Amino acid sequence: MTKVKIVEVGLRDGLQNETTNLTVNQRFDLLAKLIDAGVKNFEIGAFVSAEWVPQMAVTSKLVKKYLTSPLNKKEFSASVLVPNEKGMLQAIEAGVKEVAIFGACSETFSKKNINCTIDESFERFEAVMKLAKKYKIKVRGYLSTCFGCPFEGRISENKVVELAKRMNDLGVYEISIGDTIGIANAGQVQSVFKKLLKVIPANKLAGHFHDTRGQALVNIFAAYEIGIRTFDSSIAGLGGCPYAPGATGNVATEDVVFMFEGMDVQTNLDLKKLVKTHRWLQPKMDHLLSSKVGRIGLGKL
Amino acid sequence: MTKVKIVEVGLRDGLQNETTNLTVNQRFDLLAKLIDAGVKNFEIGAFVSAEWVPQMAVTSKLVKKYLTSPLNKKEFSASVLVPNEKGMLQAIEAGVKEVAIFGACSETFSKKNINCTIDESFERFEAVMKLAKKYKIKVRGYLSTCFGCPFEGRISENKVVELAKRMNDLGVYEISIGDTIGIANAGQVQSVFKKLLKVIPANKLAGHFHDTRGQALVNIFAAYEIGIRTFDSSIAGLGGCPYAPGATGNVATEDVVFMFEGMDVQTNLDLKKLVKTHRWLQPKMDHLLSSKVGRIGLGKL
Repeated sequence: MTKVKIVEVGLRDGLQNETTNLTVNQRFDLLAKLIDAGVKNFEIGAFVSAEWVPQMAVTSKLVKKYLTSPLNKKEFSASVLVPNEKGMLQAIEAGVKEVAIFGACSETFSKKNINCTIDESFERFEAVMKLAKKYKIKVRGYLSTCFGCPFEGRISENKVVELAKRMNDLGVYEISIGDTIGIANAGQVQSVFKKLLKVIPANKLAGHFHDTRGQALVNIFAAYEIGIRTFDSSIAGLGGCPYAPGATGNVATEDVVFMFEGMDVQTNLDLKKLVKTHRWLQPKMDHLLSSKVGRIGLGKL
Repeated sequence: MTKVKIVEVGLRDGLQNETTNLTVNQRFDLLAKLIDAGVKNFEIGAFVSAEWVPQMAVTSKLVKKYLTSPLNKKEFSASVLVPNEKGMLQAIEAGVKEVAIFGACSETFSKKNINCTIDESFERFEAVMKLAKKYKIKVRGYLSTCFGCPFEGRISENKVVELAKRMNDLGVYEISIGDTIGIANAGQVQSVFKKLLKVIPANKLAGHFHDTRGQALVNIFAAYEIGIRTFDSSIAGLGGCPYAPGATGNVATEDVVFMFEGMDVQTNLDLKKLVKTHRWLQPKMDHLLSSKVGRIGLGKL
């Protein structure tokens, strides 16, 4: 039976773009529910400036609570985003076993989002990788704006391949190819991933799609069809209010699982429990959560 | 270049499930905008009991306005739904050149929705077809609940094939295979359409998907991949408030066009004009329209 790996990004990429600031305990309860639903690969938070990203300020407390709890299991892939050496040192001190680095394919987006050029971001990654090697910490790579940039428009496919290869050469175990502004279409997704597959094996690539234009699920399907087996998703579609103009919600975990399980592709996630988690989460948030499966439920399946 | 045919169902299947009752003039303006955006295949309304479906009460006025206007072109496929002989006689009187009939794959749904058994519905269709032949009126067939029923759950694939064939044998020019409650997944869609393609040619089949669980676009893509080239969609996703529990919105025309045009599949529709139409429509409706492309816009494409 075919399998896919789902990486749950709700607690980092999701919450980071929400206005509701959940408490450490609420985040921990959410994580417990996700793990109970079968989630094994997840982001916990980010060691970034609390001034720049107030949503991630509780990360060290949440990490501590998780690592000292019975939830913590060796086989889990539990990562924290680190933007630079400083964040990496925090991660080491906190005792995390996995981190994620984050780069962009657009110079303008890189400067506006992580405040450095693409080359400078790779210098930062090298410092992080050096520490990762020393402390035996796994590193996942995010490459953002791979299909379009809000400032530069369409991104050259060759540039995506070049930067993904450069990230791969750093020694990350997986590279998540991101449609940060949700502008990719199925044709473009297959075209970009086909080029990537020529230089990076499928088991080191992941698809990270935002549903800004309703295309996330079809883009996942399109990538799946050409051999990609790892996808990022966010419980309930956390990551952007669907009412706000320019909202960029992540694709919802339960919508992705609904599709794959229906296709007899194993996710090892419990769809009913994911829907329950959506409904537990809804009253805590300040807007209608975007997952349609979560809202409507499974019906008479 | 590959082409698809998009059938615009916003004025019938869409509005029928909205609470806002647009005036004849508003509907006519909407139709004019759709035609300006390149729409050539569309539903205008339904000749059904105004008591049962108040939203369709203005159909005869709208049909008259359209038929006597410069919008009316011979090459357009402009259809009106007729549930039975009585509706068909109204259609003939009104001078329409195309009608649609509507059946179901679930006995319970058929009884609850069109108030007769499946066999009785086919008797009604035969009466309609007889008149259609006499008056040289084209007939399109809708087969609903092909993937799941709110009362009976999953529908047998063989039953769908049997009923589609039965509808085809009646002499309809196209059969629209409907996921009425938006519960289909991509695997099921390919499985059902593969079976259908064994008995009915691709150019006589259409896919009609509702986005209740966010799966409509991926289901269209899945059907496209195995050779289906006609799809129903509704401007802005008209057809059900996304806030209401159990809402069953149609897939939005602009989201479908965004996908296909991105894949270099020709729709002959103007995406910018469709987005403009969404925005013209939004203030007239009582809830946020569901199309994400319409809400967010095209970005720097």
